Amino acid sequence: MILCAVLSPALDVTYHVDRLQVHDTNRVRTIASRAGGKAVNVARLLRALDEPVTLIATIGGPTGELFAHDLQAAGLAAELVRGDLDTRRTVTVVADDTGDATVFCEPATHADWDTFLERTASSLHAADLVVASGSLPRGVPVDGYAALTRLARDRGVPIIVDTSGPALIAALDAGPQLVKPNLSELIEVTGIEDPLRAATRVARSSGGAVVASLGADGLLAVTPHGAWRATLSRQLRGNPTGAGDAVVAALARGLLAGADWPQLLTSAAALSGAAVLAPCAGEFSADDYAELIGTISVEQLAEMT
Amino acid sequence: MILCAVLSPALDVTYHVDRLQVHDTNRVRTIASRAGGKAVNVARLLRALDEPVTLIATIGGPTGELFAHDLQAAGLAAELVRGDLDTRRTVTVVADDTGDATVFCEPATHADWDTFLERTASSLHAADLVVASGSLPRGVPVDGYAALTRLARDRGVPIIVDTSGPALIAALDAGPQLVKPNLSELIEVTGIEDPLRAATRVARSSGGAVVASLGADGLLAVTPHGAWRATLSRQLRGNPTGAGDAVVAALARGLLAGADWPQLLTSAAALSGAAVLAPCAGEFSADDYAELIGTISVEQLAEMT
Repeated sequence: MILCAVLSPALDVTYHVDRLQVHDTNRVRTIASRAGGKAVNVARLLRALDEPVTLIATIGGPTGELFAHDLQAAGLAAELVRGDLDTRRTVTVVADDTGDATVFCEPATHADWDTFLERTASSLHAADLVVASGSLPRGVPVDGYAALTRLARDRGVPIIVDTSGPALIAALDAGPQLVKPNLSELIEVTGIEDPLRAATRVARSSGGAVVASLGADGLLAVTPHGAWRATLSRQLRGNPTGAGDAVVAALARGLLAGADWPQLLTSAAALSGAAVLAPCAGEFSADDYAELIGTISVEQLAEMT
Repeated sequence: MILCAVLSPALDVTYHVDRLQVHDTNRVRTIASRAGGKAVNVARLLRALDEPVTLIATIGGPTGELFAHDLQAAGLAAELVRGDLDTRRTVTVVADDTGDATVFCEPATHADWDTFLERTASSLHAADLVVASGSLPRGVPVDGYAALTRLARDRGVPIIVDTSGPALIAALDAGPQLVKPNLSELIEVTGIEDPLRAATRVARSSGGAVVASLGADGLLAVTPHGAWRATLSRQLRGNPTGAGDAVVAALARGLLAGADWPQLLTSAAALSGAAVLAPCAGEFSADDYAELIGTISVEQLAEMT
């Protein structure tokens, strides 16, 4: 079982309006809502790939119950810690005339982090791999991802960390098997513009692997076994939200199956592409995934000294 | 007791953002939420004026429970009918750099209208006056306000109706004691641009009184006892949301107390002005109200033949 630790759960609400009228009143035509947060997207993708997965998240209040209900409706197993703060919402307003989206993110605050850590520790006995994703909410110390990493390592469970900034820097010290920054996150934590040099710096710092998602330029991996770049042979147009989560899902699945790095990167780049083509984060079409697998080229890179 | 019938209850959520970034992601700095809907604003104002008041509304789902909780926190007595639809939200995004507000209104749908009518009928025994306010939600027939008006009239309880369009036209046939359209609503239901002629037409249609709120031009009343116009001697700058609800609250209170029309219009125009000066709908400062009372002039108009 892959345990997905959701540090910033949210109920993602989508409003459709005919057109966005700024500084005026907009009638919402349709409303949709579902459980969100980066690790939730990862879990949705893993479940669609028939991979056993369990979420762990702290939720609270009536919005938390809607979050829980949606997970249940989606058939996603979840270990839910009840806290005393209402789960946050994000509101995405889609203007149907242009298709453009304007997003409002309520601030994330984690209630009772210590209980979450304890419950995660208890859940680790059944876990083969941990994915910990998301921004660092208020209420979680900057070494929150580092603490999760140490918990997993102490029990011999590999962990993938997908976060950014100081939380990522702190996590590297704890030695996660894999981190997955995007290009701007990679530059932010290293101060180095060149992706290969920056990823090499991060990999040395953690002692594990780094897979950086470079958008249209594909994926770059720097690992203890070598460095590779995976690219798609064609440009994709679509919704990039959740593309990084697809990379994490594919890597988690491949690592568990014992795939080698070229295989890992091929499936990660293909699933990420299929996620771009899907309308919502956490979704993909199996046909797109299968078709894109054949369009990925992986090139081994000279390692930096 | 004044019974306030809330046909379109909503949880009004306010997000503050530093500035509104259209087609981008906005971090919400602060969130506030409270029970809303026009009749809720009327009830808040009446309670602040120490007038006994009870709300009746159909609510549902987790948002309905937040609505109920906020009424309780505000000390507002409420008869709440539980339906099976989640109460809607409105989301107002205030950009702190300019102070401008962009509003998103989820559509209103009323669950189980027949039960609401029955419960309203039961509540009428304790009511001295009814206020029925709001737009016509889905699930309520176009003669919904007319049905409420007949219920009240059958029991000898006066009713003030504040709605618009076809729902207002249908209500007029049932003969409410008072209707309170604003200028655009008055023009919409009559097709007449001149406010006095339009209000006279509406008053003849209902057999009762019409008080039209004309924004900065004050109030216009056409009643079975004569016609008047009330104006403020100075222009007010502020938040016009809820100004019409303040007119309704003052008229409800004055009608119960047996005030004459010049007194009714003076208090209605002053409370409306105090509401404009207050930051939120349903609020006012007692000092503003007291000060504005002295600035209202009421002029009797020649009746139209």
